[in-house]
Amino acid sequence: MKRIGMLTSGGDCQALNPAMRGVAKTLFNGKEPVEIYGFLDGYQGLIYGRFRLLTYGDFTGILTKGGTFLGSSRTPFKTIQIPGPDGVDKVAAMKQTYYKLQLDCLVILGGNGTHKTANLLRQEGLNVVTLPKTIDNDLWGTDMTFGFQSAVDVATDAIDRIHTTAASHGRVFIVEVMGHKVGWLTLNAGMAGGADIILIPEIPYDINKIAKKIRERHDSGGRFTILAVAEGAISKEDAALSKKEYKKKLEKRRVPSVSYEIAEALREKSGFDVRVTVPGHTQRGGAPCPYDRVFASRLGSEAGELILKGEYGFMVGYKNREIVKVPLEDVAGKLKAVDPDASIVKEAKLLGISFGD
Amino acid sequence: MKRIGMLTSGGDCQALNPAMRGVAKTLFNGKEPVEIYGFLDGYQGLIYGRFRLLTYGDFTGILTKGGTFLGSSRTPFKTIQIPGPDGVDKVAAMKQTYYKLQLDCLVILGGNGTHKTANLLRQEGLNVVTLPKTIDNDLWGTDMTFGFQSAVDVATDAIDRIHTTAASHGRVFIVEVMGHKVGWLTLNAGMAGGADIILIPEIPYDINKIAKKIRERHDSGGRFTILAVAEGAISKEDAALSKKEYKKKLEKRRVPSVSYEIAEALREKSGFDVRVTVPGHTQRGGAPCPYDRVFASRLGSEAGELILKGEYGFMVGYKNREIVKVPLEDVAGKLKAVDPDASIVKEAKLLGISFGD
Amino acid sequence: MKRIGMLTSGGDCQALNPAMRGVAKTLFNGKEPVEIYGFLDGYQGLIYGRFRLLTYGDFTGILTKGGTFLGSSRTPFKTIQIPGPDGVDKVAAMKQTYYKLQLDCLVILGGNGTHKTANLLRQEGLNVVTLPKTIDNDLWGTDMTFGFQSAVDVATDAIDRIHTTAASHGRVFIVEVMGHKVGWLTLNAGMAGGADIILIPEIPYDINKIAKKIRERHDSGGRFTILAVAEGAISKEDAALSKKEYKKKLEKRRVPSVSYEIAEALREKSGFDVRVTVPGHTQRGGAPCPYDRVFASRLGSEAGELILKGEYGFMVGYKNREIVKVPLEDVAGKLKAVDPDASIVKEAKLLGISFGD
Amino acid sequence: MKRIGMLTSGGDCQALNPAMRGVAKTLFNGKEPVEIYGFLDGYQGLIYGRFRLLTYGDFTGILTKGGTFLGSSRTPFKTIQIPGPDGVDKVAAMKQTYYKLQLDCLVILGGNGTHKTANLLRQEGLNVVTLPKTIDNDLWGTDMTFGFQSAVDVATDAIDRIHTTAASHGRVFIVEVMGHKVGWLTLNAGMAGGADIILIPEIPYDINKIAKKIRERHDSGGRFTILAVAEGAISKEDAALSKKEYKKKLEKRRVPSVSYEIAEALREKSGFDVRVTVPGHTQRGGAPCPYDRVFASRLGSEAGELILKGEYGFMVGYKNREIVKVPLEDVAGKLKAVDPDASIVKEAKLLGISFGD
Repeated sequence: MKRIGMLTSGGDCQALNPAMRGVAKTLFNGKEPVEIYGFLDGYQGLIYGRFRLLTYGDFTGILTKGGTFLGSSRTPFKTIQIPGPDGVDKVAAMKQTYYKLQLDCLVILGGNGTHKTANLLRQEGLNVVTLPKTIDNDLWGTDMTFGFQSAVDVATDAIDRIHTTAASHGRVFIVEVMGHKVGWLTLNAGMAGGADIILIPEIPYDINKIAKKIRERHDSGGRFTILAVAEGAISKEDAALSKKEYKKKLEKRRVPSVSYEIAEALREKSGFDVRVTVPGHTQRGGAPCPYDRVFASRLGSEAGELILKGEYGFMVGYKNREIVKVPLEDVAGKLKAVDPDASIVKEAKLLGISFGD
Repeated sequence: MKRIGMLTSGGDCQALNPAMRGVAKTLFNGKEPVEIYGFLDGYQGLIYGRFRLLTYGDFTGILTKGGTFLGSSRTPFKTIQIPGPDGVDKVAAMKQTYYKLQLDCLVILGGNGTHKTANLLRQEGLNVVTLPKTIDNDLWGTDMTFGFQSAVDVATDAIDRIHTTAASHGRVFIVEVMGHKVGWLTLNAGMAGGADIILIPEIPYDINKIAKKIRERHDSGGRFTILAVAEGAISKEDAALSKKEYKKKLEKRRVPSVSYEIAEALREKSGFDVRVTVPGHTQRGGAPCPYDRVFASRLGSEAGELILKGEYGFMVGYKNREIVKVPLEDVAGKLKAVDPDASIVKEAKLLGISFGD
Repeated sequence: MKRIGMLTSGGDCQALNPAMRGVAKTLFNGKEPVEIYGFLDGYQGLIYGRFRLLTYGDFTGILTKGGTFLGSSRTPFKTIQIPGPDGVDKVAAMKQTYYKLQLDCLVILGGNGTHKTANLLRQEGLNVVTLPKTIDNDLWGTDMTFGFQSAVDVATDAIDRIHTTAASHGRVFIVEVMGHKVGWLTLNAGMAGGADIILIPEIPYDINKIAKKIRERHDSGGRFTILAVAEGAISKEDAALSKKEYKKKLEKRRVPSVSYEIAEALREKSGFDVRVTVPGHTQRGGAPCPYDRVFASRLGSEAGELILKGEYGFMVGYKNREIVKVPLEDVAGKLKAVDPDASIVKEAKLLGISFGD
Repeated sequence: MKRIGMLTSGGDCQALNPAMRGVAKTLFNGKEPVEIYGFLDGYQGLIYGRFRLLTYGDFTGILTKGGTFLGSSRTPFKTIQIPGPDGVDKVAAMKQTYYKLQLDCLVILGGNGTHKTANLLRQEGLNVVTLPKTIDNDLWGTDMTFGFQSAVDVATDAIDRIHTTAASHGRVFIVEVMGHKVGWLTLNAGMAGGADIILIPEIPYDINKIAKKIRERHDSGGRFTILAVAEGAISKEDAALSKKEYKKKLEKRRVPSVSYEIAEALREKSGFDVRVTVPGHTQRGGAPCPYDRVFASRLGSEAGELILKGEYGFMVGYKNREIVKVPLEDVAGKLKAVDPDASIVKEAKLLGISFGD
């Protein structure tokens, strides 16, 4: 018999349940009997021994459900490493739970932070298989993460809706899309929503070029302009600052986010009525889109098969339309950002989209 | 031959195009020839003589389109009344355009502000027929306005999405719904989205009762709480202030809106992780929902019939499932708010929803 | 303590779960303790004593869920009345279950057939409160039934999608909408989807008038024509037949439904490429729309309040925007059909829609 | 100056407009002046010289629109090759239009049939660049075609809706998904919708194995079973027939499609209530999904760039997440079917899905 632990960590997203269902159905449908323990609220459940034995029924009817039925929490890598004010050595506690339950393997679903911890547990000798969950699509070692396409759909819907109101009123509208470090989500939602200007962290912007683009649109008869702006969009001046200086500057920011900063600057420079909309957490909520359901199910079933074969220490990823296993040490601590010279950026520019660069 | 002017004024919403299509198809399908002049960007077009002659084709294929193909603008009642810095007497200018084009009637689509001006034009001797457009459903004289149900759908979708992320993380989430003066939209979206607490301008809240409700939910095993909060939600203390004092207080507010104020207070009082999401302008954008398409088409065709019959000075409204004509003087300057003793409020309370009162 | 039985009967629809949630939350939130027994698969559960005691948790998280968590079945009125081949006197069996469980009241959710049986049980001395569930909106005594608006949304979405393909290919397309006896669903979805021709049971059609309308559209430059056709649409000739003759004719029909019959006739008469699409059971499936969630919740909570007050023998309905209680004997056996002279039909005709009459 | 012809051919699908917009924006944004001629209704427009000169405005606002604004028609390869009853040598006529307008290149959007003709025109000496449009995803030389993901979304939505009604009534439901020759759409929608059984042309089924699977589900407590069945699903016996014999058998089929045949057989073998739903043409209609909008825009802009560079004779495809140019002679006449040994099929089986094989 195999004994498997399962947990979801970090910000929730839309296809965690289908992915877990994929793992579990594959394991339950295997020849060997299996017990699956679900840890509650991410690594917290593993640390403090909060779990329950899951049955086949737990994985039924969850294909279309957003969120994670196990709960999740953001457990920063550093707080895992360093015994906290509660005096608990968290790594030791996790190992203790693992060994006490006599687990053969942990299945961990999460993004970048989660993978750092997963790799740490692997280094500590635990068997780990991971699945790439994030709406940011910024995990190294996989072309795609689940949650991403669903988030693109939600963000695009927001841009679509803003389009009609922007066109009716002849306004400049900024839609702020999630993504502090990478711009995949903004780039794709921006292209899908027909944004005229897309600002992402990887391509620092020049506010004057943005203002110029808006004026040009206006002068050639365009009534409105839509900007898709990543949470982590950054101006050329700010990108030239040292990390420390930039952090200091952020602390002094009077407005809630960069979008409002850009809006203020554009109002001044262009004289236009500039509005900001922030779909926020809706982007990670709701039912997974069909693409993500299939994709997460496929990754999940392959993770299940790895476990059945006893192959541990991998993230199940997707490369060149093949599902692949990627050594955890290759994934942890790396970021997959948009290459400013990537063909998708070139294509967006051919379509007339400005990146403000 | 009849000569009709048409304009959409105020914030755009989702069924302006179907409503105009309803008027136009009815007029074009009538026996008498008709010319329809579309004024651009609301009253601005009437004031400054910006219009174009519309054809049957202009009204084809717009049933499913959000926004208004004529454009709109917010023209506050006061700036219409008082000659502005541009020296133009706007009422005189509107009359001049009307008479110059030898119009038989103006069809005006809009909300409360728009109706004040429409009534003013009626008093000045122009023939006017209006249609009740607003996502707020706050127009006096009609049970329903178009745009409302579509906005309920968008706001509900936001609450639905927040539900999965709130449940996964065990958080308290505030979804701020449009509505500065009335709570219809928040009340309906809140009930449709399964909000636990609904705060509307008509029922001032006690922050301690809200905190208590959250604690109770938590104590009885609830992992999360969802609040649907109208933009114009107000505390009992603030409701007790004079208008002047309240305005002064608002000017000093450090946060963008009441939701953030409530979030801060709840964080302090309950210790919970409280987040705010603001779907904002997405609520008035995108395709009209089927309900609004039928409703706006029906009102539009009845407005067309009134014009064919030469009956002017009315808003086409909806009362007790009958389409009715309401004298403009009865509509202008009034507000249809949620009665705190209405049966829908009672029913919401029976369902366990708290209004913080 | 109150002991309540609950069942859903007839074809499922989209807001059964919210309605039951409304009843249950109101009862559980009341002062008196309450036990709710859920009968499985409609009257079958009552007849054969298949039920389970429901808890508060059963009604949590079901606001957005389609179908009915209790299951349903179509139990024709006649098989209820007459002891069947299994020798069971079903009415006696239902009474026996009722008395054995010492129920105070049965809450029954269903459409026309369901209400006949509910009234029969009332006549037999049982306490009954009912809720009007049907996508057909054909229940007498209420302006609206839950499930209806959700079905309108699904059927409209189908017509919307067919629009783009019809326009691209210049085709005549028939979308067959549910409704054997009444045309509310077809009428509303047809108007919402911009159908050019709407055929409903209440207004028999002349195939030549339909062909003429299509030719006229074509001659005036229209590339395509969309027909929304109710399952029960009927030609003038067929409407003139006796019931017996018509039934006989239906038995000989070579095609699956009236839509295909109309398509064949139009192909012959007009020479156009005529296609048929049948969304079928999708119209009653999926999440309830926000309108239905609010509406069903409201009716449910009012039903709960009636029970708390001990008022039995009513359907909770909706009249002139007020929630009302309608004596069951007034509801049973009657049908609310579209009046061919209703204002909505007149308005549809003003918009240029043909009913083929 | 460049002079470009553009046409869409074959069944319409959801991202034709974004793809054409991508080509046109890239060409119009290029340095060289360009004229784009749009041929109406596919090859028909090229044959009979029906076209119009397109402007930048024709490509504005069409990113979210389904269908094709140029119109399309199915022009079977054979009728193109052989002068028809109208005496027109169609290939000669197409060449004549091309040379008369002094075109530099034809941009042709279509599926398999379209590509055969496109290659024929290339062989005849015309410059051709093509784009892979089909909901079937069966074009050789590209991993993905646009229209596919949008169709997956629609078909999945149908399965989702059927789920709630199947569960409520405890029924067996067949959802018939488009695809006569290949099963990509059915496979993906089936997996996304949580179908229990998926039948595709590439994997002939054994009706007894399907009946067995349904019984097993029932015996282990499953109330319902969902089958996703491709239009071209085929039994093992039928697959063993010669093409001629099979065609003969199809002509004698009493029911509209294979789904009804399977339903009848299952009713007999299993005794269950088996229903069929056919979403039909809705699968190719409506707005393109965000994935398709981005994908089609990218392919379109790359096609535009090829033309700017004067590289002709290619289909713009997608291989291993790179946009590639595929020689037309490699594409024409080939089919990309599902490999029964593909990893996605294996994964589906790990999830417990039966293919009836």
